[in-house]
Amino acid sequence: MSSAEFDRGTATWGMSSSLADVPAAVNQRVSEYFAASTSEFSAIGPEFADAIEALRAFTVQGGKRVRPMFAWAGVRAGLESGRGSIEVPFPDANPDPSVLLTAISAIEFIQACALIHDDIIDQSDTRRGNPTTHRRFESQHRSSNWAGSSEHYGVSQSILTGDLALAWADDMLLASGLSPQSLAAVRPAWRAMRTEVIAGQILDVAMEANGSESVDDSLKVIEYKTASYTVSRPLHIGAAMVGADPELMNTLRSIGQDIGEAFQLRDDQLGVFGDPSVTGKPSGDDLRTGKRTALINLALQAENRGEGAGVGVEKLRDGLGTASTEEEVDALREVIEATGAAETVERWITQRSQRAIETITSAQLGAQITDELVEMTVALSDRKF
Amino acid sequence: MSSAEFDRGTATWGMSSSLADVPAAVNQRVSEYFAASTSEFSAIGPEFADAIEALRAFTVQGGKRVRPMFAWAGVRAGLESGRGSIEVPFPDANPDPSVLLTAISAIEFIQACALIHDDIIDQSDTRRGNPTTHRRFESQHRSSNWAGSSEHYGVSQSILTGDLALAWADDMLLASGLSPQSLAAVRPAWRAMRTEVIAGQILDVAMEANGSESVDDSLKVIEYKTASYTVSRPLHIGAAMVGADPELMNTLRSIGQDIGEAFQLRDDQLGVFGDPSVTGKPSGDDLRTGKRTALINLALQAENRGEGAGVGVEKLRDGLGTASTEEEVDALREVIEATGAAETVERWITQRSQRAIETITSAQLGAQITDELVEMTVALSDRKF
Repeated sequence: MSSAEFDRGTATWGMSSSLADVPAAVNQRVSEYFAASTSEFSAIGPEFADAIEALRAFTVQGGKRVRPMFAWAGVRAGLESGRGSIEVPFPDANPDPSVLLTAISAIEFIQACALIHDDIIDQSDTRRGNPTTHRRFESQHRSSNWAGSSEHYGVSQSILTGDLALAWADDMLLASGLSPQSLAAVRPAWRAMRTEVIAGQILDVAMEANGSESVDDSLKVIEYKTASYTVSRPLHIGAAMVGADPELMNTLRSIGQDIGEAFQLRDDQLGVFGDPSVTGKPSGDDLRTGKRTALINLALQAENRGEGAGVGVEKLRDGLGTASTEEEVDALREVIEATGAAETVERWITQRSQRAIETITSAQLGAQITDELVEMTVALSDRKF
Repeated sequence: MSSAEFDRGTATWGMSSSLADVPAAVNQRVSEYFAASTSEFSAIGPEFADAIEALRAFTVQGGKRVRPMFAWAGVRAGLESGRGSIEVPFPDANPDPSVLLTAISAIEFIQACALIHDDIIDQSDTRRGNPTTHRRFESQHRSSNWAGSSEHYGVSQSILTGDLALAWADDMLLASGLSPQSLAAVRPAWRAMRTEVIAGQILDVAMEANGSESVDDSLKVIEYKTASYTVSRPLHIGAAMVGADPELMNTLRSIGQDIGEAFQLRDDQLGVFGDPSVTGKPSGDDLRTGKRTALINLALQAENRGEGAGVGVEKLRDGLGTASTEEEVDALREVIEATGAAETVERWITQRSQRAIETITSAQLGAQITDELVEMTVALSDRKF
């Protein structure tokens, strides 16, 4: 086995690894990073070792690894289009796939911070079927009969654990083995990604509080919190890593924006119309929690567009966050259908995914990565969960 | 004015600027960074512009800038000892003072994150005479009559604002203009500093909850949360920036550990015996809040050392966090005196500051920086506030 490849069970990681190979490889690389960090830092104290373990358990327990997948797509698009290593004189003519894997895996630490802090903000009890990190610390406090509020202890330690994840994201990227030139090329995209996801979350929290029914505002949250962070910037980061030219990076960003918006708009649809046996979430979850998605705001604004007369928009406004029975939820669904909002969102999804596919197929990215990106666009836009 | 210097009122920043010049120069540089970032990112949305403004107001409103001062001491020690640029071949024979100023100022963003998140954890209402960041957002929510809990809104937005500060710390360091070689040399110290301060905070929160009376545990919190983070790693970072050799970096780290421990142990003394008219905090603040400092744990453990018989350690244990009148606080002070703990801590401070001064004066750092570091050690160890 060459040093540029490593064994992961039966498969091998290399420059031609597919997007579908990414999650398992990222899981292994993140686990390796925790093994090294745990042995380096656990001696600071058992309570810090507990926090590292909480972060490890959270980070390795799953997730779709969508961001590293798109970063890998960016790497491969840069190389397979023959447009990598053009603007930046990279020292390695042949990039090391193992180094690149570490670098794309580092994004998962940003994601760990985002989710751990998001779960505090949303006061969520579970994530991926396990207790959220603040609930985990809260339980430890309670079962140990410690002093003070168990709930506040959980919040405090998980704020700090999220901070640790955010710091380690940089550490892992910078320790990946990427050349100084490659790191410098990645920096603007990495910097933008972090500020944009935090900005998107701040807008989201503010909109939830101020009850904004603006469709533009909800599309802006989608743009920053999901499209940039989940698709567009990861593609950008991957392409930058291998020195892609600015034009290619712009093309990938625009593809990413469309895929990301389609992905989130599908999420909005599933949050109202999804089949609970497939989504794993309660039927009409967004209606029950009163989330202000683009779909729901579009329905609420129907009367302002002259489309909402007599369909019961007021009933929708009253029922959001208070509906609990299947009958009540169904009644709200009917209002959303009647305003035409669901149909509009479906059309938006189709427009965005079609535009993404057209751009992908005309960008001369290389046959293999083109096929995989198209497949991923379809899968994310049409998914049922 | 050369590009390597900039005007800041009457003075000019250059390679011979003293440690006392650092706070004003850092304030200006941080303000400039906010001006640029605000114009770059505010268009994302007014709610994000609010968060940037909250972070700006918090970061520029003051603070002693101790960490950039020590980083500057590290820079000057590296250069004035003639031991910089040895291990790492730096491209610039003459480092640019403006670049170095930006790089040392970046630490203040880590500090902003640490304080904003610490204020949530400590549920503090004010910081430096102004409302804490979570109270600021809480007030905005309340006065706007928004939906949901104002308190939780304040916590949510300030978690995210702290995250933004942590991300921007890296951004500012990496945009400082330091060469890739210098950045690579700084990285291990920067990485260690962030993990250590988070680790120190996690230990502190855990100790407060589990009521640990271990003197060793409270010294460990001092080691990571204060000594490493505030003095030792900033010195290390500054020296690394100018390519100091590893032996010099180790010497500076050991000096920093002693100064930092003396600094925090003095804080422990002032928290019990400080004059409120000078400290600006309530008399016997640590006794009233029941903080477990090294001083207080040393007093509580007196009976285990056979020194506490008859002096009322049990009264101290009961009174911590419940004492409120001046008479009650006085009674607890007497117990601490009687156990000999205050005397021991005073001796520890003297030992550490003397050891630091001996190491500083024998390390051949250069006459000017030697004098300034000795002066700062004395000032931080003997301070009354």
